[in-house]
Amino acid sequence: MTAKNAFYAQSGGVTAVINASACGVIETARQHPDKIANVYAGRNGIIGALTEDLIDTSQESDEAIAALRYTPSGAFGSCRYKLKSLEANKREYERLIEVFKAHDIGYFFYNGGGDSADTCYKVSQLSETMGYPVQAVHVPKTVDNDLPITDNCPGFGSVAKYIATSALEASYDVRSMAKTSTKLFVLEVMGRHAGWIAAAGGLIEDQGIPVVVLFPEIEFDQDKFMAKVKSLVDQHDYCTVVVSEGAKHPDGRFLAEQGTRDAFGHAQLGGAAPVVANMVKEALGYKFHWAVADYLQRAARHLASKTDVEQAYAMGKAGVEFALAGHNAIMPAVKRVSNDPYQWEVGEAPLSEVANVEKFMPREFISDDGFGITAACKEYLLPLIQGEDYPPFQNGLPKYVTLKNAPVDKKLGVFEL
Amino acid sequence: MTAKNAFYAQSGGVTAVINASACGVIETARQHPDKIANVYAGRNGIIGALTEDLIDTSQESDEAIAALRYTPSGAFGSCRYKLKSLEANKREYERLIEVFKAHDIGYFFYNGGGDSADTCYKVSQLSETMGYPVQAVHVPKTVDNDLPITDNCPGFGSVAKYIATSALEASYDVRSMAKTSTKLFVLEVMGRHAGWIAAAGGLIEDQGIPVVVLFPEIEFDQDKFMAKVKSLVDQHDYCTVVVSEGAKHPDGRFLAEQGTRDAFGHAQLGGAAPVVANMVKEALGYKFHWAVADYLQRAARHLASKTDVEQAYAMGKAGVEFALAGHNAIMPAVKRVSNDPYQWEVGEAPLSEVANVEKFMPREFISDDGFGITAACKEYLLPLIQGEDYPPFQNGLPKYVTLKNAPVDKKLGVFEL
Repeated sequence: MTAKNAFYAQSGGVTAVINASACGVIETARQHPDKIANVYAGRNGIIGALTEDLIDTSQESDEAIAALRYTPSGAFGSCRYKLKSLEANKREYERLIEVFKAHDIGYFFYNGGGDSADTCYKVSQLSETMGYPVQAVHVPKTVDNDLPITDNCPGFGSVAKYIATSALEASYDVRSMAKTSTKLFVLEVMGRHAGWIAAAGGLIEDQGIPVVVLFPEIEFDQDKFMAKVKSLVDQHDYCTVVVSEGAKHPDGRFLAEQGTRDAFGHAQLGGAAPVVANMVKEALGYKFHWAVADYLQRAARHLASKTDVEQAYAMGKAGVEFALAGHNAIMPAVKRVSNDPYQWEVGEAPLSEVANVEKFMPREFISDDGFGITAACKEYLLPLIQGEDYPPFQNGLPKYVTLKNAPVDKKLGVFEL
Repeated sequence: MTAKNAFYAQSGGVTAVINASACGVIETARQHPDKIANVYAGRNGIIGALTEDLIDTSQESDEAIAALRYTPSGAFGSCRYKLKSLEANKREYERLIEVFKAHDIGYFFYNGGGDSADTCYKVSQLSETMGYPVQAVHVPKTVDNDLPITDNCPGFGSVAKYIATSALEASYDVRSMAKTSTKLFVLEVMGRHAGWIAAAGGLIEDQGIPVVVLFPEIEFDQDKFMAKVKSLVDQHDYCTVVVSEGAKHPDGRFLAEQGTRDAFGHAQLGGAAPVVANMVKEALGYKFHWAVADYLQRAARHLASKTDVEQAYAMGKAGVEFALAGHNAIMPAVKRVSNDPYQWEVGEAPLSEVANVEKFMPREFISDDGFGITAACKEYLLPLIQGEDYPPFQNGLPKYVTLKNAPVDKKLGVFEL
């Protein structure tokens, strides 16, 4: 068997640990030079493959690749670009094959969420549909934790740890101030469709914090919410609300849509947090503070979960090993073996069952009143935030790596996206 | 000399390290039982003194007090309550003396910012003005870093480290996404009057990040700002903006005031970050993300600066030592001895020169164009964010302490605030 090159690309929103998966892919590939000659990374994801904008990772030292393990974001650039079906856009698939052929690419590693699982699945079928043999493996990544089959997604454990820690710390702050000042703190978190990240905020209940969680899966009931907040503030003098950006009114409008317009008639863009805070202020008069964590939550490598980092690396490593063992159209997955002690192993999921399936919070993970999480949910979440894995610091700041990202010489003509 | 009791209270907005100062006060007092019999903490700050709601810290174990060093927020509760002048409210000062007498309090330690320095100064004069001898020492605390004389304020170094780290991490994220998605990231930070916290965001420039800082000290010039953002995005494909909540239009309006009203005619409450982000989107069309860190930044003990924690503790310790040495109406201060290597020692500032004086960013710390920080500013800031001082973690979350806060028996009648 002659060594082939591998293509690796990052897709969609990046995370604190997607580079740990890249590290797992490249370090493992480097251990098999007889089978994988070089790993070419797509500059800005799949766009790099289409435009033949490839990065020569062999130009990076072992130290630089090792540093990916503790560097957040996508070191090669990511993109939001979903390939259409083969029928709808044959031109793009033909181009991919042209690029793969020109650069002798036999392995395709695609690191992303639901959309990229779909793209990866289509690439895995190129052998059958277009006669070009390529082994396509999807490496799971998403802070939203919404991929099926795998017990959890790399990226989620770290954002969960960040949100639970931040909500805990801010709640201590509000508790200090509640007597004469702030009584309500609202933290907005990511997760437009699935409430996994919001659920992590519910973990602080066991630290004695009065917390209300607003999930996208549960229709917002304003009266019930006000009664809940009032009862908590009556009892504790303060209350923390963790609201998902995807929380919705019964008519389907996001809470974040305020329906107000500026002087030019533009819809006023806010966030769910200020809306919820102002709503409570109007109904109950509490002084409030609110925060929108946005990118901070998914980039916070400084507070990554050690479990998450290890799983992200393991998924990258397993992806290469599965490919070398001849597997195609699959995704390495986390398989939970036991809760206490937490044990997991690497499983395997067929891409045909992963692509385009979204995993929501099961109703039994949400408390009866819809404002918190159940014991079963805590049992699921807690192992995922275990352990700290601090990056090195230099001169007061984390010392993250920026790669050289040297281009591979082009061999083909220009391709218009 | 018979041992007297000490009163300790936390005032104003709390920080990640104000409890480290409390730890310094109480641990040092415990080493001098011959002079300080017990430390009574005010429940919710000075309100606890006025209402005779005192906390008996002797009920807390040495371990619990030691844990204050790594627990954010105000362990005894804080408040926003400024004593009026002696002439305007003699009743409150008479009450303080009544409480001090009833509980044999000879030392007054007040842990706060500018307003509380003023209150502490007034208390220090009670001996003269009302014939009750009490030694009053102000222990500096404020994330805003706006106290005079002291080189910096405990609380600031940690928020600066948090903001610089968070801005760096989010910038890596945006850089990954810029090709097809987000090109602009706006982070709103605290500091309504002084731009010290915003300045910390400027530190990431030396990590290769194109960053624009908007200070409260510099009038916002929208055209100049747009030109700056455009030139950075043209060059780097993305840009990060760190905006102070106190940034203002030339007419004095905060950027955060959008001038929009909801269906009920209420002024729309937003933040400076969404305003700036939308402004850029309208002018230049860039896709954006924004975050408002709010309490997360000042509560983030998980990312505290080691230098800051050490200084916070040292200020509390020195406060007690100064009082035992007979000093009154003073504040321990950080005195910078050298920049490289960074060395500091404990100094002393007279409260008459601290009370009601605000320290702003010197113009020479802000770059000529008003959008960044100078080398002199970096030289000032960098030592303050040095070192990490992680709290212990348990089951995935920081293990912070919640004290028993047992009340001291009341001896007096009720006092209406």
